[in-house]
Amino acid sequence: MTKIVTPDPLRFAKGELILLDQRKIPEKKTYIRIKSAAAAAKAIKEMVVRGAPAIGIAAAYGMVLGRKKPLQSAKMLIEARPTAVNLKWAVDEMLKVKDRSFKSMLAKALELDKENKKLCALIAEHGAKLIKQSSCVMTHCNAGPLATDGIGTALGVIFAARKRIDRVYVKETRPRLQGARLTAWELKQWKIPCVLISDSMAAHIMKTSKVDAVIVGADRIASNGDSANKIGTYDLAISAKYHNIPFYIAAPYSTIDFSARNEKDIEIEERDEKEMLFVGGKAISAPGVKALNPSFDVTPAALITAIITERGVIKKPSRKTMRRFYS
Amino acid sequence: MTKIVTPDPLRFAKGELILLDQRKIPEKKTYIRIKSAAAAAKAIKEMVVRGAPAIGIAAAYGMVLGRKKPLQSAKMLIEARPTAVNLKWAVDEMLKVKDRSFKSMLAKALELDKENKKLCALIAEHGAKLIKQSSCVMTHCNAGPLATDGIGTALGVIFAARKRIDRVYVKETRPRLQGARLTAWELKQWKIPCVLISDSMAAHIMKTSKVDAVIVGADRIASNGDSANKIGTYDLAISAKYHNIPFYIAAPYSTIDFSARNEKDIEIEERDEKEMLFVGGKAISAPGVKALNPSFDVTPAALITAIITERGVIKKPSRKTMRRFYS
Repeated sequence: MTKIVTPDPLRFAKGELILLDQRKIPEKKTYIRIKSAAAAAKAIKEMVVRGAPAIGIAAAYGMVLGRKKPLQSAKMLIEARPTAVNLKWAVDEMLKVKDRSFKSMLAKALELDKENKKLCALIAEHGAKLIKQSSCVMTHCNAGPLATDGIGTALGVIFAARKRIDRVYVKETRPRLQGARLTAWELKQWKIPCVLISDSMAAHIMKTSKVDAVIVGADRIASNGDSANKIGTYDLAISAKYHNIPFYIAAPYSTIDFSARNEKDIEIEERDEKEMLFVGGKAISAPGVKALNPSFDVTPAALITAIITERGVIKKPSRKTMRRFYS
Repeated sequence: MTKIVTPDPLRFAKGELILLDQRKIPEKKTYIRIKSAAAAAKAIKEMVVRGAPAIGIAAAYGMVLGRKKPLQSAKMLIEARPTAVNLKWAVDEMLKVKDRSFKSMLAKALELDKENKKLCALIAEHGAKLIKQSSCVMTHCNAGPLATDGIGTALGVIFAARKRIDRVYVKETRPRLQGARLTAWELKQWKIPCVLISDSMAAHIMKTSKVDAVIVGADRIASNGDSANKIGTYDLAISAKYHNIPFYIAAPYSTIDFSARNEKDIEIEERDEKEMLFVGGKAISAPGVKALNPSFDVTPAALITAIITERGVIKKPSRKTMRRFYS
């Protein structure tokens, strides 16, 4: 498996879940020790750990910590972030463990963690085949090691195809700036050439420079291929379509919510307006100004060239192609 | 004429050009006294004063200060910001004054200033007719009093139609956040309901909420209707088209550069990457990360529903409709 040079976003040691505080990256590496399911849910809610696959694994360990009140723990953890379905998936997997001893629960969480690392590598491998020689690619938010506790989904593909990539355009990803803070930092450590752009520059770059592919992660995929991802993904997909640039979603199979028929069944998390109104603790607008802060948007399947999972690549995702692929 | 409750971005008194330092708004109102054309050019370059119409008027006063070396002053002022054509237009108007005495030059600058305030009011009047009852509108960057030294272009239209407007979605406008800092502040003082969104939220809001019109300013319009405006306008126009939402440009006639055939003839200003990499003096990315910072983009005429100038509304702008309208 590929060597990851960036720090692990999470690990379990001596009966505690240890989380890298991603809110402090790239300024400093600090770790938070989690001793209960409630503390794990709080850390997920406050985005100490973020990224759909990583919060799934964090929640699995959270279930180890909360094993004595499994249903209550499950509820807290699932409600911490409503959009990413991996969270619910991982918690459900943990609830299936019949023997709720520390040893059995931890064994299951470790298995999910290991499995997750493997499937990131497979996603990377499948996706890399779509990247042509001398490509310039664009990505949004962060779907690398920090987000996945593996090599990444979208960034995993970029890592696996790095010898064919001339440049990565990293969208900064307002309001929380995960692109600027996390993705640029990870790419820099991988020595993959990258340049930061504001979210509003994407279409201009597509028109005036060379962009061969857009690749992003996902937090929930409906059974027809409609994909929820970080706010700004939908804008990006519309611009990619307008410029005839392939738009790829890379995500584990567990991101697919077969109970969601389409985007109407996906709940979008609304976060505190303070995330919009303050940057680095400093107000960016006049006192009393209100802001919206939907954390995700949904890109309809029609705008997606292909969805890449550990099981392979689904081109032209739709209810029909998705059903055929996964049956 | 409409009463403007926000402070003047510029005025000329006692032989000096006095500029409100817009870089400090909304935190505080400080003024910078300009005594030479070189100082005026520097203030324009550093965006103490910004907005295509306002920098045109500031440059006219700069020519009063630099009247003893008119050609040198003209060159400095025009080169301060390469995209906004109003700057060149105003400087050219000043160069036409044959008597280069302080009195004559100042009289001309005051005339342009007065004229500019009038034409903002006319743009507002023409544009307001396009806004229907109970509208929600979206705008980008700042095209209000601070940008125009009048009632505004895009915001002038919004002001004039305010009784029919339920809500204004204000895009924050990275990297310099003119939407968050200036537009939200102006709308608040006008008591027009507004809400701040990140640039990346525009398409999501268009899909999930009610947006009846998008209206923005322009820095240069080619003779075929292609319009340069703040980076992020092109993305927005593509999203508006995708959602069948009318997309309006409001700008004075002097913004039209009849020497530019189309967008290929419009120079796009590239600004310092530091504007991207730091917000409020604080780094948003890891040391060594590079950023792009094109200050404008060009929206092709095909994406523009209408261009509103003081002379009226040009629907479906194209070389043909523009020529017919202005001949």
